[in-house]
Amino acid sequence: MQPRLRPRRAEREAPVYRLSSAPRVEPAAEHMTGVLVMGGSAPDTRLIDVEPLARAYRRVLHDSRGSVLRYGDAAGHPRLRSALAAMLASTRGLTVGADQIFVTRGSQMALSLVARSILRRGDVVAVEALGYRHAWQAFRLAGARLLPVLVDAGGLDVAALARCAEQQRIAAVYVTPHHQFPTTVTLTQDRRQNLLELARRKGIAIIEDDYDHEFHYEGPSVMPLASLGGTATVIYVGTLSKILAPGLRIGYVAAAAELLERLAAYRAFADMQGDFVVEGAVAELMETGEVQRHVRRVRLEYRRRRDLLADRLRARLGHALSLERPSGGLAVWASSRPGTDIDRWAAAALDHGVAFQTAHTFTFSGERLPHARLGYGTLNEMEIVETVERLAAAHVAVTPG
Amino acid sequence: MQPRLRPRRAEREAPVYRLSSAPRVEPAAEHMTGVLVMGGSAPDTRLIDVEPLARAYRRVLHDSRGSVLRYGDAAGHPRLRSALAAMLASTRGLTVGADQIFVTRGSQMALSLVARSILRRGDVVAVEALGYRHAWQAFRLAGARLLPVLVDAGGLDVAALARCAEQQRIAAVYVTPHHQFPTTVTLTQDRRQNLLELARRKGIAIIEDDYDHEFHYEGPSVMPLASLGGTATVIYVGTLSKILAPGLRIGYVAAAAELLERLAAYRAFADMQGDFVVEGAVAELMETGEVQRHVRRVRLEYRRRRDLLADRLRARLGHALSLERPSGGLAVWASSRPGTDIDRWAAAALDHGVAFQTAHTFTFSGERLPHARLGYGTLNEMEIVETVERLAAAHVAVTPG
Repeated sequence: MQPRLRPRRAEREAPVYRLSSAPRVEPAAEHMTGVLVMGGSAPDTRLIDVEPLARAYRRVLHDSRGSVLRYGDAAGHPRLRSALAAMLASTRGLTVGADQIFVTRGSQMALSLVARSILRRGDVVAVEALGYRHAWQAFRLAGARLLPVLVDAGGLDVAALARCAEQQRIAAVYVTPHHQFPTTVTLTQDRRQNLLELARRKGIAIIEDDYDHEFHYEGPSVMPLASLGGTATVIYVGTLSKILAPGLRIGYVAAAAELLERLAAYRAFADMQGDFVVEGAVAELMETGEVQRHVRRVRLEYRRRRDLLADRLRARLGHALSLERPSGGLAVWASSRPGTDIDRWAAAALDHGVAFQTAHTFTFSGERLPHARLGYGTLNEMEIVETVERLAAAHVAVTPG
Repeated sequence: MQPRLRPRRAEREAPVYRLSSAPRVEPAAEHMTGVLVMGGSAPDTRLIDVEPLARAYRRVLHDSRGSVLRYGDAAGHPRLRSALAAMLASTRGLTVGADQIFVTRGSQMALSLVARSILRRGDVVAVEALGYRHAWQAFRLAGARLLPVLVDAGGLDVAALARCAEQQRIAAVYVTPHHQFPTTVTLTQDRRQNLLELARRKGIAIIEDDYDHEFHYEGPSVMPLASLGGTATVIYVGTLSKILAPGLRIGYVAAAAELLERLAAYRAFADMQGDFVVEGAVAELMETGEVQRHVRRVRLEYRRRRDLLADRLRARLGHALSLERPSGGLAVWASSRPGTDIDRWAAAALDHGVAFQTAHTFTFSGERLPHARLGYGTLNEMEIVETVERLAAAHVAVTPG
């Protein structure tokens, strides 16, 4: 055999400088080929008609004669702030001015900026447990200590939170009251009243993450805490990632003007400002009603997917799982029956080409519990049927005898 | 007079929660109407042909069949990472793989993520003084203590930095070697060698911000430190804000793969990921040579503007200012002559409809010095002539007798 004459690529040298310790990120299954991903709360971007969006980009670029390409206001494109304020008023009973809307890169940036704007190092933030770890990390990175508060069938245990608040100062509480992440339950009306009253009395900021407000299938959507309690108490965080597309990275905060000034100050040193081309294009799609039509259309589709997934799971895996159809959202919360190890099942499912998240991804200390979040947002009806078949095969593989 | 019957808008309540102290942001003159802004380093977005961009948006949306709208890789769109790597190799002598490119929201996010990825609380970061305050804040917000190091006609005083490095551990040094911000000077070759040698010996990360590499008018551009020293020592930060448009918010880091993993981890909790629609569209404009043609065209234009501004300033204000034509960039660094108070002049200029920044915006402790940065990037030739006339009128207004 001839010796290789081409020089090998030079070995890359390790950095001469030190790296800081990095926060832990859960690996994402989203990009594996051939795997059907039961995404935690992701929507199906195949349902989007891209042509109106392409037209909106073109119109914004031409009509503004390039002014959208300049440096602009850190709080976002004025048209999008107005469009979001109008949407909140008409669909969520939340009456705020456009000057109380701050556009961010998805809700993650909203949480990150809010955290820095209201927290001092060592401040306590109460969080739902089980809950959304990406939000927790945003608070931790702003210096917060987290206080896990139990979630049950009525949502966050507000009485338990009130007892904690007697013992120590709590700066903020982070909640997902509409379809709790990950358990999908809705915070009860009593608890909403009690939570608002507690927050006012103790000076606790309520950070309300209403990430999939539109996807409610049983009766009208529940109005957000912010519409009941006002922006003096509630910092409302929303996103277009579910109702439009995650890739556009449009989130927003509706809050007191005082807070918005802080958000702008922190944003100046985080990413300076948003992208007014996409913000202007999305504003146009909201103004023309395109976004609202899209939501009505996909809500019906997601409802069909929810029903199909729940039915198929019961029919094929009723011996292994118990579940209730969620009133909204893009995922089913299921519990494994005795004799089924949910985490072993999840590992086997990946070998069979299905990815889903079990409870330990959502518990405060990573402890294992017999539950899983089974997302149906990204799967069409054929894929849902196939997914359940693969889950069943994987279940056989991990079940003795 | 009839009493007003319409109810007044309810007074907004102040938040029940506390706000953290916010970092100070310099007010921007960019948005005042009727004011000619000598932007510190902003380009003229009126020179952009928006049609190719609109077409690129459309093509990316259609060709990807919406897959650009999904969640994706925090490091950026693969096509853009490849296009940036190819550009760095062909124009800057910087040979890195696409896997060493991390796309960010402008260079500000690049600096913010780099700061978090390499700094522990209390670490020392050496910075140019005079220098770029937005970068300093990114380091401070990551917990750094800043060490100002003098800049002279040869750029950063590397010998002074070396002396400091004997006394204390320095984690990183932030430099703008090509056209130093704000003084426009170029770091000499000797100092480049010494800086790289010092960094290797002491384990100091060099953060090189090459924000306007393409706009060099006298001879070839100076190759970046990163091309000389490699990514084991230099963390290279670039942006398309100047060569394309600030509003698109495309920045990037070229660095060791180990660092890129950290950037991704911190980004997960800052804004999750970028916008693959704009990233894909810009990649297309780079692949087709559109960006490169735009750069060649505007470089000639900016050179004309530089020459015109320097000539007009000398002709009309030679008694008040001394200056040298910069070899590159989008601004002139000028010094006021004795008898002219530059800060009073700047205040008067604003009354006459011209905004420019004086040295105190760039000094480490805000001290006043008799210099100013006069940007010509955003002003066409007619506007430059008018700007200098207004500056002259303002100068008369603040000059006794």
